[in-house]
Amino acid sequence: MSIANHLENYLAYLKKNPFLGSPDNLYQPMNYIMNLGGKRIRPVLCLIGAESCGGSADEALNVAHAIEIFHNFSLVHDDIMDRADQRRGLPTVHKKWNEPTAILAGDNLLVKAYESILAYSGPNKNEILTLFSRTATEVCEGQQDDMDFAERNEVSEADYLHMIQNKTAVLLGCSLASGALTAGAKADVVNKMYQFAIALGMSFQLMDDYLDSFGTSNKVGKVIGGDIMEGKKTWLYIKSLELDASATHQWFDELKGTSRAEAVIKGWKSWGLDSMILEKSTEYENNAKVLMQELSDLGINTEGLNELMLFLKDRTH
Amino acid sequence: MSIANHLENYLAYLKKNPFLGSPDNLYQPMNYIMNLGGKRIRPVLCLIGAESCGGSADEALNVAHAIEIFHNFSLVHDDIMDRADQRRGLPTVHKKWNEPTAILAGDNLLVKAYESILAYSGPNKNEILTLFSRTATEVCEGQQDDMDFAERNEVSEADYLHMIQNKTAVLLGCSLASGALTAGAKADVVNKMYQFAIALGMSFQLMDDYLDSFGTSNKVGKVIGGDIMEGKKTWLYIKSLELDASATHQWFDELKGTSRAEAVIKGWKSWGLDSMILEKSTEYENNAKVLMQELSDLGINTEGLNELMLFLKDRTH
Repeated sequence: MSIANHLENYLAYLKKNPFLGSPDNLYQPMNYIMNLGGKRIRPVLCLIGAESCGGSADEALNVAHAIEIFHNFSLVHDDIMDRADQRRGLPTVHKKWNEPTAILAGDNLLVKAYESILAYSGPNKNEILTLFSRTATEVCEGQQDDMDFAERNEVSEADYLHMIQNKTAVLLGCSLASGALTAGAKADVVNKMYQFAIALGMSFQLMDDYLDSFGTSNKVGKVIGGDIMEGKKTWLYIKSLELDASATHQWFDELKGTSRAEAVIKGWKSWGLDSMILEKSTEYENNAKVLMQELSDLGINTEGLNELMLFLKDRTH
Repeated sequence: MSIANHLENYLAYLKKNPFLGSPDNLYQPMNYIMNLGGKRIRPVLCLIGAESCGGSADEALNVAHAIEIFHNFSLVHDDIMDRADQRRGLPTVHKKWNEPTAILAGDNLLVKAYESILAYSGPNKNEILTLFSRTATEVCEGQQDDMDFAERNEVSEADYLHMIQNKTAVLLGCSLASGALTAGAKADVVNKMYQFAIALGMSFQLMDDYLDSFGTSNKVGKVIGGDIMEGKKTWLYIKSLELDASATHQWFDELKGTSRAEAVIKGWKSWGLDSMILEKSTEYENNAKVLMQELSDLGINTEGLNELMLFLKDRTH
């Protein structure tokens, strides 16, 4: 099945399985965030994982759903922590309701994610629960690292890569690997599927950072230089400090808003940072390609993984 | 084993199993809340449940721990929602650290609670996970109801009892019943153990409300009339509205602080509300006694349940 088919199936499943319960002030925000849209890349990854390993995507639907619920839980809580007012052009849960309700709705989403795995009755249920729990903890660690980095002066490239791996890539790894687990895949296959999705996620995240500074705004759909204006400690910022700490400090301490973004982007281009981050992203992409070949050698149908790679690349190039 | 023995064993287990991980800003608050103290009544209930049904309390330790972790997760998040500055005489997690960290530390505690059940390998693991998840959702519902009631004019006695059942009693039910499940107990026994703990919890909660208004402060260890001064919608307040709405409104709208508490307590005593709430609490206690007899008839050793009942009664009388 193509990504489009998997997506369609998942969206039909989502529509048929709203959260039901009382009080409304708890369940409405849970359904609100689940229906705000998004690419649904995580459940699709899970379904691809199942099918690639010869399993049934249909039987992986409750596991796929669990991961999408978990993702939405993290959005609700992260939006409180980041004081974000909007998500996908609409008010965040804590803005539309209030913070206590957003905390609780998030908590109940996390419980519902586990319940969705508990409703699954195929192979490797315990392994899926264990992988899911480990991943959930890593996502929390990544978010706390991200918040800590904002207050810290010294953040190394390794620290940064560890943080984005936990904050975004491991959940993609968990999605694909848990799909493979539903198909009864063996440990070496599951592990390679996991590493493949991690590599893809890292490549994607670095491309996202690239586009934020060097993209064209109509293609990216957001303001260029947003990370720079916010003073976020991205890979580019960390490398910039390595290359020329005093110029970097000068830009970030003395300039604000678009004038900072303009100066920084011009400086970074003259240093070749745009090529460097593309290279780093490509490095991960090449890792993913190697893993895909190894999976193919193990007898895995890698059509879905290949489509996925092209799909993610298309979104960012 | 006596309650004191179970408690000692659980405390030894807790000491040997701190949360390990990085970053410190995530793991320190998790260990901080777990070590603030408390009666540890929930894990003890779980261990009693296991032993009463002929199982081994030792093998139930990771399930008992899961429930204590869950309880602490709910304390961390509730303290944010309730804007509480102190817990057990020490700063709450969001005061000692900050709100984002308290949200995340709570989230990771919830994941660790599930992980502690996943580490359990005895009978009925799936049933324990299912009961635990259902209970976690009910606790969220109870907390949201409690927050909703604060904004609502009309709260019936049934609404209030439903709320306190979810907010506090179901976790006690889950504790005792999951202990019974670790011993491989049958559904009818598990169900009666659950109902017994619910009845005990409801009786205890109503006694707590009684003591807040009619206790003697040195015995209770807190200020008498606290609920009244805060304007909390307790069972007493709801009954007071039923008996004389205009007098109730007059007290709560026109008086503040200790003068309100004095007037209300005097009024409620003259209406016999002190006896009424004791009667209601006794009703639940009698239910618990009936269930204990039924469990005894099913061949369950009810010594531990009996000790529990006396222990809780002693704390409140």
